[in-house]
Amino acid sequence: MPNASICTIGDEILIGQIIDTNSSRFASALNASGIRVTRMLSFGDDRQVIISSLEKELRENDIVIVTGGLGPTKDDITKPALAELSGSRSFREDPVQLGIIHRILESRGLDVLDINAAQAMVPDTCEVIPNRLGTAPVMVFRFTGGRFGHDCTLYSLPGVPFEAEGAIPDVIGDIRRHFRTGDIFHKTIMTYGLAESKLSKMIGAWESALPAGMHLAYLPNPITGVRLRLSIYSGRHEDEDREVEEQLKTLRSIIGDYIYAEEDTTLEAVVGKLLKESGRTLSVAESCTGGMISHLITSVPGSSEYYLGSVTSYANSVKENVLGIPEEIISKYGAVSSECVARMAEGVRRITGSDYSVATSGIAGPGGGTEEKPAGLVWIGLCTPRKTETFNIVFKNDRKRNIERFSASALDILRRGIISDLKV
Amino acid sequence: MPNASICTIGDEILIGQIIDTNSSRFASALNASGIRVTRMLSFGDDRQVIISSLEKELRENDIVIVTGGLGPTKDDITKPALAELSGSRSFREDPVQLGIIHRILESRGLDVLDINAAQAMVPDTCEVIPNRLGTAPVMVFRFTGGRFGHDCTLYSLPGVPFEAEGAIPDVIGDIRRHFRTGDIFHKTIMTYGLAESKLSKMIGAWESALPAGMHLAYLPNPITGVRLRLSIYSGRHEDEDREVEEQLKTLRSIIGDYIYAEEDTTLEAVVGKLLKESGRTLSVAESCTGGMISHLITSVPGSSEYYLGSVTSYANSVKENVLGIPEEIISKYGAVSSECVARMAEGVRRITGSDYSVATSGIAGPGGGTEEKPAGLVWIGLCTPRKTETFNIVFKNDRKRNIERFSASALDILRRGIISDLKV
Repeated sequence: MPNASICTIGDEILIGQIIDTNSSRFASALNASGIRVTRMLSFGDDRQVIISSLEKELRENDIVIVTGGLGPTKDDITKPALAELSGSRSFREDPVQLGIIHRILESRGLDVLDINAAQAMVPDTCEVIPNRLGTAPVMVFRFTGGRFGHDCTLYSLPGVPFEAEGAIPDVIGDIRRHFRTGDIFHKTIMTYGLAESKLSKMIGAWESALPAGMHLAYLPNPITGVRLRLSIYSGRHEDEDREVEEQLKTLRSIIGDYIYAEEDTTLEAVVGKLLKESGRTLSVAESCTGGMISHLITSVPGSSEYYLGSVTSYANSVKENVLGIPEEIISKYGAVSSECVARMAEGVRRITGSDYSVATSGIAGPGGGTEEKPAGLVWIGLCTPRKTETFNIVFKNDRKRNIERFSASALDILRRGIISDLKV
Repeated sequence: MPNASICTIGDEILIGQIIDTNSSRFASALNASGIRVTRMLSFGDDRQVIISSLEKELRENDIVIVTGGLGPTKDDITKPALAELSGSRSFREDPVQLGIIHRILESRGLDVLDINAAQAMVPDTCEVIPNRLGTAPVMVFRFTGGRFGHDCTLYSLPGVPFEAEGAIPDVIGDIRRHFRTGDIFHKTIMTYGLAESKLSKMIGAWESALPAGMHLAYLPNPITGVRLRLSIYSGRHEDEDREVEEQLKTLRSIIGDYIYAEEDTTLEAVVGKLLKESGRTLSVAESCTGGMISHLITSVPGSSEYYLGSVTSYANSVKENVLGIPEEIISKYGAVSSECVARMAEGVRRITGSDYSVATSGIAGPGGGTEEKPAGLVWIGLCTPRKTETFNIVFKNDRKRNIERFSASALDILRRGIISDLKV
């Protein structure tokens, strides 16, 4: 099985000004092709650091993916470093990439400046995979024989996430043509509503009894819940499917409806699938979550088929005037209450005409709570054609995380509500 | 100036299932304290890999920050590795962390299981910084003298981002007590509305004339625009403030109102500040952005002071029934039109009673466009007490990125609209 190292170049990463998302996207794609990622590495925009770091990675890996360090204002450091590393003495112009540069800039009504055109210049030691989404090409340096003790290949891509991601299929295609790719089998199980330690206690005996070579990992996430990943690093695919299914039978009997999917997905996608398949519609009323539930739901392509819309009733006046909640409800029980959130859910269902609705009202913080209603408290209301229900949960996180957890909890309550309503 | 390496442990990172955000948060905090981050590194949950990787980082750095590899289900790999690395032969129980474990779990109504209590056990070679936000403590290993050729310290933290982030102030405090921290001066300038290459062309001459030792970096981001960072790696603070101000005067004269802030912030925070200071209120009507603008606005603490709420009118029926847009407008011009988005902005301003409003209607994709109205087209409507204006832009990205750019553009149009309205 070939192994790979993923490197990102950029001072902006080392000073913490941007978060590297490219490495994760590449890791996922490499992994799916049976290439084992041994390491990820970020280093600065410095010619000598670039050269020495990449030399080490090439010695220890079959494939080195480099993102970043390219772009109209960055080419002057990375390209000469790659030229030196590969023993290039001159640059050539890549006509295909030059054409793309012209097309992209002209479609945006921009002139092609010298620094744009210069992006089509590459060391003569590399092959080019044209980058259709951006102005910097993908450069492929193949090192054969003794230079690094073994045959190895370096792929250099722009750091802009949209462009790097867009080039992944071409890079994976090239790797598949040049390397013998292996098999890593992963099965992902999505759970929501159990803390990692609680879950591990519940399934600990099952985990200990897993067959040799099968490995379980816990991946907690505030928005998606705890993801469980079963991995097998060898063997044939057919057997693994059957072997994993055997284990899942037991797992399902233990944690039952905490499992919301048996593939890598999200609560909002699962809710969307339920609505689409049943032909039902949804609306949302948000207070403390401020629009995040609606944003998550509409991040799923095709959500316009089942999603009608939402009201973010941040001010009480909007709860009253748009959602039609009587002023007495708010003055008597407060906006953060079972009574209010039930009326919010009913109100948005009425004005949009949806089949289902979910509503939130809580205190995201920082501060703003009382002893009775602490920061981190959320009330969630659920409306189906048959009934209205309310739930409350307290989280003890910061504002950002509270909003995420409130939103995820509302989506899970909605998921359970739809499933139980469709069963009737 | 001490240097640091930031390491993350976890197979889940190497297979691309989660994105490492801890390293970036730590990098930012270290940098602000004058510690230069030389490298970031991710490797897998493997005892030998952990030991050999950390040995190398300790040899080459004064400070090594390790996140991940800890947690109720992970302690069995990382802790023995750290014990071996530090020459520990036995574990001790940390009473403070044990108390925290009890408090956290009991406040959530959970029993303290054996695997929870075991998290308070640490190698006897480390000091403990209690982690008040989670069950796994921060472990501090100080290596003096010859072991790694110099004095160096390893900090091991849990990987859960909320806990890792929460521990940053304590870790930085410990570093400041034990190391001589230096000075790195950064000045950040936030711009929106100019592509990186266009911006670099406009300010190229200014950039070339910067004094020696002053370095400019371009950090493009779809939501915040291009961040410019001026860095000075030496000298005294007072001089740098003055020297940078001198340069900024010229920069302001070149790119004028594309600059929306001279500190590291966001469009939604700047809009919030304008509203708060002027005592005005805001509402939003969203179609293609699906709730993201409202989510961004409410992610700012204190936004309830000026934000009244929003309507996500995903379905045309909601545009008509909730926002009061005449059916003829939609049938004649379409939902993605200047006419419709103007009515959306006016409608949400009317039903919420806000001073300002902004609205979006567009085609986020994938697909769904026509030649006349391609995927990536957005119409943005802006209402002030004086007038309604509309704008349109075409982006050529995927759904996620289009939604981000639509939202950021709407916030920038809103920012410019408020500033110009307040001037009258």
